[in-house]
Amino acid sequence: MAKLSDRYDPGPQVAQCGAINLGTKDLEKSLHFFSDLLGMEIVQRDGNIAYLRGYQELTHHSLVLQQQEESIVNSYSFRVKRPEDVELFATEFERQEIETLEVPTGTEAGRGTAVRFLVPGSGHPFELYYDIDKPESAEELRSKLPSNSSRRRGLGVRRIDHFNVQTSRETINQAESWVRNNLGFNRREYALHRDDTTVLASWMSVTPQVHDLAMVANSFGKTGQLHHVAFNLENLSDVLTAADVLRDYDVTFDLGPGKHGIGQAMYLYVLDPGSGHRVEIYAGGYLIFDPDWEPIKWEREQFPDGLTWYGDPFVYKGDARSLETTPSAGL
Amino acid sequence: MAKLSDRYDPGPQVAQCGAINLGTKDLEKSLHFFSDLLGMEIVQRDGNIAYLRGYQELTHHSLVLQQQEESIVNSYSFRVKRPEDVELFATEFERQEIETLEVPTGTEAGRGTAVRFLVPGSGHPFELYYDIDKPESAEELRSKLPSNSSRRRGLGVRRIDHFNVQTSRETINQAESWVRNNLGFNRREYALHRDDTTVLASWMSVTPQVHDLAMVANSFGKTGQLHHVAFNLENLSDVLTAADVLRDYDVTFDLGPGKHGIGQAMYLYVLDPGSGHRVEIYAGGYLIFDPDWEPIKWEREQFPDGLTWYGDPFVYKGDARSLETTPSAGL
Amino acid sequence: MAKLSDRYDPGPQVAQCGAINLGTKDLEKSLHFFSDLLGMEIVQRDGNIAYLRGYQELTHHSLVLQQQEESIVNSYSFRVKRPEDVELFATEFERQEIETLEVPTGTEAGRGTAVRFLVPGSGHPFELYYDIDKPESAEELRSKLPSNSSRRRGLGVRRIDHFNVQTSRETINQAESWVRNNLGFNRREYALHRDDTTVLASWMSVTPQVHDLAMVANSFGKTGQLHHVAFNLENLSDVLTAADVLRDYDVTFDLGPGKHGIGQAMYLYVLDPGSGHRVEIYAGGYLIFDPDWEPIKWEREQFPDGLTWYGDPFVYKGDARSLETTPSAGL
Amino acid sequence: MAKLSDRYDPGPQVAQCGAINLGTKDLEKSLHFFSDLLGMEIVQRDGNIAYLRGYQELTHHSLVLQQQEESIVNSYSFRVKRPEDVELFATEFERQEIETLEVPTGTEAGRGTAVRFLVPGSGHPFELYYDIDKPESAEELRSKLPSNSSRRRGLGVRRIDHFNVQTSRETINQAESWVRNNLGFNRREYALHRDDTTVLASWMSVTPQVHDLAMVANSFGKTGQLHHVAFNLENLSDVLTAADVLRDYDVTFDLGPGKHGIGQAMYLYVLDPGSGHRVEIYAGGYLIFDPDWEPIKWEREQFPDGLTWYGDPFVYKGDARSLETTPSAGL
Repeated sequence: MAKLSDRYDPGPQVAQCGAINLGTKDLEKSLHFFSDLLGMEIVQRDGNIAYLRGYQELTHHSLVLQQQEESIVNSYSFRVKRPEDVELFATEFERQEIETLEVPTGTEAGRGTAVRFLVPGSGHPFELYYDIDKPESAEELRSKLPSNSSRRRGLGVRRIDHFNVQTSRETINQAESWVRNNLGFNRREYALHRDDTTVLASWMSVTPQVHDLAMVANSFGKTGQLHHVAFNLENLSDVLTAADVLRDYDVTFDLGPGKHGIGQAMYLYVLDPGSGHRVEIYAGGYLIFDPDWEPIKWEREQFPDGLTWYGDPFVYKGDARSLETTPSAGL
Repeated sequence: MAKLSDRYDPGPQVAQCGAINLGTKDLEKSLHFFSDLLGMEIVQRDGNIAYLRGYQELTHHSLVLQQQEESIVNSYSFRVKRPEDVELFATEFERQEIETLEVPTGTEAGRGTAVRFLVPGSGHPFELYYDIDKPESAEELRSKLPSNSSRRRGLGVRRIDHFNVQTSRETINQAESWVRNNLGFNRREYALHRDDTTVLASWMSVTPQVHDLAMVANSFGKTGQLHHVAFNLENLSDVLTAADVLRDYDVTFDLGPGKHGIGQAMYLYVLDPGSGHRVEIYAGGYLIFDPDWEPIKWEREQFPDGLTWYGDPFVYKGDARSLETTPSAGL
Repeated sequence: MAKLSDRYDPGPQVAQCGAINLGTKDLEKSLHFFSDLLGMEIVQRDGNIAYLRGYQELTHHSLVLQQQEESIVNSYSFRVKRPEDVELFATEFERQEIETLEVPTGTEAGRGTAVRFLVPGSGHPFELYYDIDKPESAEELRSKLPSNSSRRRGLGVRRIDHFNVQTSRETINQAESWVRNNLGFNRREYALHRDDTTVLASWMSVTPQVHDLAMVANSFGKTGQLHHVAFNLENLSDVLTAADVLRDYDVTFDLGPGKHGIGQAMYLYVLDPGSGHRVEIYAGGYLIFDPDWEPIKWEREQFPDGLTWYGDPFVYKGDARSLETTPSAGL
Repeated sequence: MAKLSDRYDPGPQVAQCGAINLGTKDLEKSLHFFSDLLGMEIVQRDGNIAYLRGYQELTHHSLVLQQQEESIVNSYSFRVKRPEDVELFATEFERQEIETLEVPTGTEAGRGTAVRFLVPGSGHPFELYYDIDKPESAEELRSKLPSNSSRRRGLGVRRIDHFNVQTSRETINQAESWVRNNLGFNRREYALHRDDTTVLASWMSVTPQVHDLAMVANSFGKTGQLHHVAFNLENLSDVLTAADVLRDYDVTFDLGPGKHGIGQAMYLYVLDPGSGHRVEIYAGGYLIFDPDWEPIKWEREQFPDGLTWYGDPFVYKGDARSLETTPSAGL
């Protein structure tokens, strides 16, 4: 008796937000932040490159820290659903005359072949891969729970959550619709500019999360920017504990803690002391299982509520805060 | 430019755990429990039938309470991914010579046509539907957040989470493999009997949740039993608050609070004072985004840790607790 | 064998922050806020006056709501340690030629004789009492826990916590030193003005709490002002839940949630929709058991950290927020 | 103008639960538990003795770990309110012909002279002291908050909370009434044996906490036993996090997590892997400010609710759990 789902080919699909590769000018400071404070495991270290994961990630890494001159994002990586999807996506991109690069097995340790390309319009360097090792943690870190790769430690980062990227107003509509039409991202919540046409911000996902990827327009004309990468904690109260502890270290608080109306998750934005990239300590949020979910459109007057339902506000007396971004690499 | 995912037909799929229809001997007591205490909205009331939902559910209901002689489960309903999937599933079941029943539009208020059938082996009455209304809440309950149908109230049930059903040892393997092969459920965690063949318990999902449906074998030979239906809260601490408040009412505590090793969620099992059905107050848990997730097998010696990672234990000095179940209706 | 502590007379002492009597222009709105939302019990209602308490208060009330023309504070009441202390305090005040008023038994329902006077300098109307009834709650509210007067309900206010009062810069030093020298309040944390002499703010207590009473100087020359009255919840996370729920009602958020560095408690300031008085939803904080506690002095450059350790900030780009106050009655 | 409270001499008083001195057979294991896991600071280490404190304790230590042959409690220390109280207590004890021992300055590092004696009846070795250093933490641990001695670390122990000691049924009434009459402890909650005369358990305090000291009768005839020493965390949810993390280490869980009805605090009892002494991870609880608090008497039928309001139960199907105790030293 065949499984119904075996009878059809759904085509290549993105499975999840996989990993970010961050350039940092001070690897040791970044490692202190992500490993000693946030509690991520250093799975592998090869000279100036370190591979980290949260305690609930069984795969090799969700964060690569690379000592380099420039604090840029080297890549945003997504895992695809099936081994053949890497190749299927590559073929499709070539059909669309998008330049692609094959990233050989092991370029990022533990990972198989990936296809790299720049998102049309925004220029963010995305990589798609399927194969990735699932190494056991060192014995002294190993959890008794088989769904955890290691014990909960530090502030309790359990996994990567999502990317929030920025591009210019001129390019965002192209980029946002491209990722939806070609990578299968679904708009979950969004806001438009005054012109009611240009995307101001769009929260999109391939999973029941409200977003695995958000795209936000900026007014300073820069493409290919990172707003933040988010890491997931178990409870809203864990974000408070993180705030309490991180305030006592030389970690710059950018914004938060507070709760988003959009997505209903708790946020705390801080800057990695090594790289200066913005990192969101993130917990909660609702899940979307409705197959006929209607994207929620935020009108301008309610939008501040969407950004901050409660807590340290994004918008204060008309000033929008938290606009700094960090650039991404090219192909 | 066509969307890649438009090009293929993945076949009929189950989208989510949709609703449970519970028979209750005392509707008012059940309503007090689910609405006044747990905080669910009574969306519609037609005489002896009431339709309820959590504050984050936009669809018409996830719980039907029906005053009747017997406290049985009238149906376990799942929503499918596309309108045509109801019919496609029905056709497939008929091909397998499984008796089906068409449940006409409006049989449950707000819901379109469903197909009803008994799970081969276990006999649980499942219903599959797609169409369901998304009514606004009454104005005095309405939330300012468009992703909430109503304001958070009471103990904060935001949505249905999963069903846990029991059947006899003799029938569980047939039932468990049937729902996996035919409804697309994926085994996430499981345990086998001493014979290493018979399923003791299996946690399965069609979503990234560890389970939308669990099946557990019982030793007293009864098929078609409900162990519990779970409703989801936002934080582990919300389960503690629920325990604190419910202990002060005439609500029977069955087990908990505690945290499962399997699924890593917080549990509290109480009995609905109106119907006697077991209800799990549930929060947390990990999400599975790995497309190559390997089902976790629990060996017998670790299994108590899987049931109770910490808190009020399922197994105490060799006694297994919480074995009472309630029967399900037939076709 | 005599108890050692029986051999000495420690003199009259204040035991605790007892109750606030708030004038409100809209009693029904105030009752909705304090009772339906915050979960306080309405112990007694006499026409335009209502008496409320939190679920962990055994005494008759900690909040009196009185419908009247002006939204002023009618009194700040403190309970003394022994029956005779009311009289002993009165005698001492008269010796100091402070005008006092005897408030007869039952003026506030359930309460015995009190002495009323205006704090020298600030003019806040304080009342000291000892006798107060400890009525059982109505049976449908009664808790199974003998240390609770009623069941935890709503957002879970369990008791009054403290008063924060304001007076002019010209009068604060007199008032602050008077309450310390005459009512036995101990400075726990404080800050001085640029002149290093004038009190900017002082957190004082007669209990191990960091403050039962705070006094803050204002720059607009008004004496006898209320900044806020605080009510206590069990956990920091309860303040988040309160913020989540209250944001969805027509309750004005003044500031928060956030965590104070001073006292280390979580805050959320909202305005009672009936009276406009500022109410702090409060949880956590450290306790002082050290008999030789040295008052903590906050220097101006660290003071913003003291006001907001994390969360929605008191001081934003040089602007101090939350300066509105409400006046207090005279003798 | 004299302060009222200066005019009287209240006699010697106990201010707080100060410190416990634990003998351990494996100091390194105990240090790993208390410092690396629970997050306590090692303030000083002198060979086989280590002095620790929580992050909110400014005094030198609240825990002394001493490598020795026997895992016994060397002393239970309480701080008194005034310097002269040590001597005043000693004089009173001598008057009662209780043997006392002067413990010279520095016997416990950082501490001044103490008086040591055995509690009449139970034989627990109590020490009373006033003088204790308040050393700054090492710079790399120091907090920006002046009310914290060091940064919050590990599972977040902020201070010692209370002792729970056991003695035989034959001796408990003498011991319990002695500490109340001579050290000023107030009964807050209690239960009596079937005879309605013999104390089964008594929760007593000199502070607004429900207990700084509990005494429990045992049925196996042993005097001078430790049931547990408790350390305080900020939130109920912190106890869940502690349970989650500790379950993943070789730390024996004795009981919990759960919530007491008596005192309304969250508990988790584990055994220090080095010494085997029972340690309670503790958070929450109500505070008593009422000067006329009536001790709450628990009748036998409600007593299980008092021990466990919710969570892992003390009493299971008639079996009382958690009866192991560790002995205390003599004079």
